[in-house]
Amino acid sequence: MAGVFDNPVFPYFAFYATVVVLKTMAMTLVIAFHRLTKRVYINPEDASGLGAPKPTTHESVERVRRCHMNDLENVIPFVLIGLLYTATGPSLGSALLHFRIFTGARFFHTIAYLLPLPQPSRVLGFLAGLLATVSMAWSILSATKY
Amino acid sequence: MAGVFDNPVFPYFAFYATVVVLKTMAMTLVIAFHRLTKRVYINPEDASGLGAPKPTTHESVERVRRCHMNDLENVIPFVLIGLLYTATGPSLGSALLHFRIFTGARFFHTIAYLLPLPQPSRVLGFLAGLLATVSMAWSILSATKY
Amino acid sequence: MAGVFDNPVFPYFAFYATVVVLKTMAMTLVIAFHRLTKRVYINPEDASGLGAPKPTTHESVERVRRCHMNDLENVIPFVLIGLLYTATGPSLGSALLHFRIFTGARFFHTIAYLLPLPQPSRVLGFLAGLLATVSMAWSILSATKY
Repeated sequence: MAGVFDNPVFPYFAFYATVVVLKTMAMTLVIAFHRLTKRVYINPEDASGLGAPKPTTHESVERVRRCHMNDLENVIPFVLIGLLYTATGPSLGSALLHFRIFTGARFFHTIAYLLPLPQPSRVLGFLAGLLATVSMAWSILSATKY
Repeated sequence: MAGVFDNPVFPYFAFYATVVVLKTMAMTLVIAFHRLTKRVYINPEDASGLGAPKPTTHESVERVRRCHMNDLENVIPFVLIGLLYTATGPSLGSALLHFRIFTGARFFHTIAYLLPLPQPSRVLGFLAGLLATVSMAWSILSATKY
Repeated sequence: MAGVFDNPVFPYFAFYATVVVLKTMAMTLVIAFHRLTKRVYINPEDASGLGAPKPTTHESVERVRRCHMNDLENVIPFVLIGLLYTATGPSLGSALLHFRIFTGARFFHTIAYLLPLPQPSRVLGFLAGLLATVSMAWSILSATKY
């Protein structure tokens, strides 16, 4: 990793990977906002002193949690696969195409989930991100040994 | 990462890591298949137009979701630990043993979860994968600084 | 990754990343302990032969599961961001500060969740870890290209 920045693709990968991980982490703050404003807490000790009743659920909170979970299921595989893909030495143009499609698809997916937009908006955002990751995985498999 | 393929273990790690991440991602497609065939949707907007009732659950869907969650909990730690382990320069034979046991154990775990096979099949698959990851973690801890 | 140990920060990153991933994985064993002692199983086949009734839930199990889930949501982003941050060549002092604050914060978070300690203990542990990761992410974004 000493010469990691010698790989011309790496600085771009590091940028997009960081952006999508930050986007995923931001979901926890959106969940906290809904929990506080709707006063729905997940643990008994969270509610005490706030005059809130015992732990319950609220559709606004559950929706953001599902969106967050979907991010974890897709963004983390993207970062892992993207790192291995970067290490195989792809062309910069091809790599940027993958990183940008994935990043755009996940931001669109989040918007489609949280508004929500009518289907198939969310499904298309999900599939575009999945295809970008699978395409990189395919490149890795054809460049590696088993 | 310029010379990442100079590490003789890395191309093998990249292969097995990609395989287990793809296997994990494939669970989302199995979940989608069950959701569509059993008509159990997770969001109100997913059901509209399909004549389905409001969101509900189905044991077939929940089982694959639990299997998917268990993959996320085990496969992602394997890839992270495996990458750091590869960087410590293990022998190829030892590394391959870890990667292959983990990969085999997770495929067996998935089969045991989805059929399902009687216990302790699934627990043994889970433990074999866990031990492979912990063994690599141990190698890292004894080669690093704090 | 041939010369990955030439980066003076890397051996330290590998240590702390491995410690927090192992801590996260240890949660699965705590969950299993509670499942066995409280006899609350997640699948029908787990209960058969043990004379246990059909799958149910128990607050002790659910609490550790929430703690485990919170680890996955925070520890994995830390390892991914931390790896990219290490690759940008930070000073050793600054890097160690980030790694140690995060690791300490997550151990404190786990203790605060499982005892449980009164709030805002758990929230402060969560926020300290989040800030360490966001601070590293900020360093990456200012060192990379898009």
